[in-house]
Amino acid sequence: MPTAPFTALVEALPATVPFVGPETLERAEGRPFLARLGANESVFGPSPLALEAMAKAARDVWMYGDPSQHALREALAAHLGIDAGHVMIGSGIDGLLGDTCRLFVEQGSAVVSSLGGYPTFAYHAQGYGGALHLVPYRNDCSDLDALAQTAQREGARLVYLANPDNPMGSWHSAEAINTLLAGLPEDCLLLLDEAYIETAQEGTALPLAPEDPRLLRFRTFSKLYGLAGLRVGYVIGAAPIIAAYDKIRHHFGVGRIAQAGALAALADQAHAAEVLAQVVDARSQIAAIARSHGLTPLPSATNFVTIDCGGDGQHAAAVLDGLIASGIFVRKPMAPRLDRCIRISCGTPEDLRHLSEALAEVMMGLQA
Amino acid sequence: MPTAPFTALVEALPATVPFVGPETLERAEGRPFLARLGANESVFGPSPLALEAMAKAARDVWMYGDPSQHALREALAAHLGIDAGHVMIGSGIDGLLGDTCRLFVEQGSAVVSSLGGYPTFAYHAQGYGGALHLVPYRNDCSDLDALAQTAQREGARLVYLANPDNPMGSWHSAEAINTLLAGLPEDCLLLLDEAYIETAQEGTALPLAPEDPRLLRFRTFSKLYGLAGLRVGYVIGAAPIIAAYDKIRHHFGVGRIAQAGALAALADQAHAAEVLAQVVDARSQIAAIARSHGLTPLPSATNFVTIDCGGDGQHAAAVLDGLIASGIFVRKPMAPRLDRCIRISCGTPEDLRHLSEALAEVMMGLQA
Repeated sequence: MPTAPFTALVEALPATVPFVGPETLERAEGRPFLARLGANESVFGPSPLALEAMAKAARDVWMYGDPSQHALREALAAHLGIDAGHVMIGSGIDGLLGDTCRLFVEQGSAVVSSLGGYPTFAYHAQGYGGALHLVPYRNDCSDLDALAQTAQREGARLVYLANPDNPMGSWHSAEAINTLLAGLPEDCLLLLDEAYIETAQEGTALPLAPEDPRLLRFRTFSKLYGLAGLRVGYVIGAAPIIAAYDKIRHHFGVGRIAQAGALAALADQAHAAEVLAQVVDARSQIAAIARSHGLTPLPSATNFVTIDCGGDGQHAAAVLDGLIASGIFVRKPMAPRLDRCIRISCGTPEDLRHLSEALAEVMMGLQA
Repeated sequence: MPTAPFTALVEALPATVPFVGPETLERAEGRPFLARLGANESVFGPSPLALEAMAKAARDVWMYGDPSQHALREALAAHLGIDAGHVMIGSGIDGLLGDTCRLFVEQGSAVVSSLGGYPTFAYHAQGYGGALHLVPYRNDCSDLDALAQTAQREGARLVYLANPDNPMGSWHSAEAINTLLAGLPEDCLLLLDEAYIETAQEGTALPLAPEDPRLLRFRTFSKLYGLAGLRVGYVIGAAPIIAAYDKIRHHFGVGRIAQAGALAALADQAHAAEVLAQVVDARSQIAAIARSHGLTPLPSATNFVTIDCGGDGQHAAAVLDGLIASGIFVRKPMAPRLDRCIRISCGTPEDLRHLSEALAEVMMGLQA
């Protein structure tokens, strides 16, 4: 009995998994990690008010969440000083990137991103049939000029840019992003992934101009707000685009606990400010730990620090493998030139003690 | 400045919202409902063990959920007595139906369902370009012969069937489903939505034969397990189809609290059995309330009772509107002939007292 045929598009897709979860590594190693510093989660946790709101919502979880996401959309709009018609909430930035590709990408559509940039965007763009054109980084930053030139040359429908950048932690100024926007083809949309915008230096975020039809901005409760496991992100954009998500989205997809937790987290800006201070502190501690072992930390606008291990990709992979074997979950970029680095998320003081000890041992082993 | 063009498919889609949420109605009425009996949620709530597991997972919600869903998939497989390679977990049956349409439906693919059947399936099938062929119900049941004939005539790629049925509460025997399967075109897949299978009479569920490549079965934690707001469903099917979801799914989409809550709910079969007893009891109470006001309850294999109001669609709509104005959230089928009915979810004894009082008032008003 043959199976009903998959679509031609699905048939041609590789069996990709964008990320191997730390849980899979832990099962393979047969023990939990000492420190979980590989997925740029916020070890500092969410607001206690969010915990309270989630517990309350759990008692009501027999009810579907509000499919119109009314309270959270209104609160986000008020927080951002824009109209709720410019915001759509989805299942994290990942879910929203998928929906966005579905809106704009069809078989053969040209899509531009950075070589070594966020793999989940590439996964979604190709999953909807996009022809992906990847632009190498320049000096560990996404190359805005080359992104614009490639978009012009290929007649791109979408350009993806993470600012601040993952996995390199680097950033561009708002001015540079405006120049990129001006250099794109007229009917090309810039998807600006701002997952790390809250930890960025001043002057990184463009002013909000949500009516601009050339730009969609993606933000999340997974990073600074410490709610990665809840799956809540949002996109800010022109009203006709935001309305179009209603044609395709999973209307009940952001559940009751998720909406309540995000709403409470957003309201607790004092907690967010405390976490930001801890992130800033952890960034300099990670940089100091790296330097003390002869490695070079790169400047970071994110909740992680990318570290140049001073050799080639094989050398950095050896450092990474050593850390993982020592119980420290970290990840590394894989693209040429970027692959000389490893990437370490901000951790608690205890996490960073574990990191420091493990790194000392690993570097000693590699020098021997 | 023009917006980047949507795909041709998206451009042609209507601005549909599959369901208006009760929260939207409450905002319009300016007050909360007295009883929430319109969305076939489980008012009896989830297992206390699930509440505990969700609270614990909330403290860890800064971490992404396991993208391989290892623990929950293994537990479901053990519960069902099948291999974990035959189960995929998704964001409710709704989310999985979307992913399934994406796997099999392309522009113009013939898809068959019932006229008046689950609107979210039609939404997804059309959302991926499917040409929908809708078969009228016969005697308030989905018409299996006509579904098979239509699938043969149109060369359908997918046939959708809810068994037990929503919105009518009716059901077919396992034997009848087997006959339907035998009558489908060779490369046609039956999507069997078993959201309500746990409340069905014996002999309704097909034996599990997960290697059968003609059949995908969808189940959920939203109904009997009382976790609608958590968004966890699963699909059982042949290993090559289950594996294909990995090509397109949002790998981190089922979050940490969702996986933990579902796992604990599954383990508490004693709670599930208690809820089942309450559902069975509420079904007969709703039937009795309907009869006492001269209305005719239809037999139900679900956690709701569909009630024939004894007139046309306009009459049933008047009953529905009256109940909603009295603070009772209920819904009704809209398709010809089915539209003479309203649909009432099982409620607590208090919910049903409110229902009984409101219905008395509404029917008195309509007779006056």
